[in-house]
Amino acid sequence: MALAHKGLDFVERPYPFTAIPEIEEGFSKTVPILRDGDRLVRDSFEIAVYLDETYPDRPTLFGGEGGRVLSRFVESFSQMVLHMPVTKMAIMHIHDMLDTPDQEYFRASRLDRLGKEIEAVAAEGDAERETFAARLEPVRRTLHFQPFLGGDSPLFADYILFGALQWMRVTAGPPPLAADDSVMQWFERCLDLHDGLGRRVTAA
Amino acid sequence: MALAHKGLDFVERPYPFTAIPEIEEGFSKTVPILRDGDRLVRDSFEIAVYLDETYPDRPTLFGGEGGRVLSRFVESFSQMVLHMPVTKMAIMHIHDMLDTPDQEYFRASRLDRLGKEIEAVAAEGDAERETFAARLEPVRRTLHFQPFLGGDSPLFADYILFGALQWMRVTAGPPPLAADDSVMQWFERCLDLHDGLGRRVTAA
Repeated sequence: MALAHKGLDFVERPYPFTAIPEIEEGFSKTVPILRDGDRLVRDSFEIAVYLDETYPDRPTLFGGEGGRVLSRFVESFSQMVLHMPVTKMAIMHIHDMLDTPDQEYFRASRLDRLGKEIEAVAAEGDAERETFAARLEPVRRTLHFQPFLGGDSPLFADYILFGALQWMRVTAGPPPLAADDSVMQWFERCLDLHDGLGRRVTAA
Repeated sequence: MALAHKGLDFVERPYPFTAIPEIEEGFSKTVPILRDGDRLVRDSFEIAVYLDETYPDRPTLFGGEGGRVLSRFVESFSQMVLHMPVTKMAIMHIHDMLDTPDQEYFRASRLDRLGKEIEAVAAEGDAERETFAARLEPVRRTLHFQPFLGGDSPLFADYILFGALQWMRVTAGPPPLAADDSVMQWFERCLDLHDGLGRRVTAA
């Protein structure tokens, strides 16, 4: 979404979990990784910062320095408030989408990180579905003032939150929000952006 | 805090609840109200926008357009995640600080707004003290990257969150956070800003 927002041409290369350590000679333990000519950048936020600094004449992802620093708060909200519920709702779906070597890696790494077998994590998913909409109250109130977090049009802050819900959508299905919920309507607007780029991503 | 940030001279005029309808011939049902020459502006956020637009050569409160729109998300987080817990923890303290006519207004207006007598609201305050720190996880993670929400120095977004905790501090006492909590350390930094402006406000 950030690359499309900047209007930059790019090739997307999906990798299985177990291949990530070999990308770019072990440049990063996690994806995404951006290669731009001979520059390598890891981490979504750092990639957005790099793109805005390197291509300042293209549409801005942050809307200036204040937007850049406050996007960290949006990222933190997404990670601390939304990621664990999405994990609980999506974890078995993700597991079931993987090939066998990745399933083994996924099971072991999630046990290590979450302290529970993935079945035990998934058992909490139904309860999360009930309370998920309430977690988004700060987003809902913001959308009372403006159609995107970024104002009249999206900024990287929108793509951060969109990413959390898109992660759910392409693994476990649509986020548990009513069709007339302003957050769901914003999510649909995000799916339409950049010629429906997000909508074209479907589960494997 | 916003006026001090802009380096503007100002006179602060506190009013009891029941006098608000008479300020500036009923200009606003709520405070704060700013008078700047012959201009009147209501609402903290609108006042900050006014100040940044009217005095662009003084230190910025938003750090540009992106900062302005994302400050709405910080305001929404503060209102939807922090205001009700602070209300529950502080409501009896606020009541007890008021003169009799204001106590009567406060009791009736809160019953109308919250659907409960203030004693019933306050009864939920102890439980809120236990979970308050967890609500601030998105702030805590942001402070892992930067000393203020606004980056190396504060922006209006900091004053929004500071305001919620300061409201608690000057009524019910310090927010229920450990001294070594990075959010508490940020709050102390905010109290020190502008020659300790926030620290000089004490309960009546």
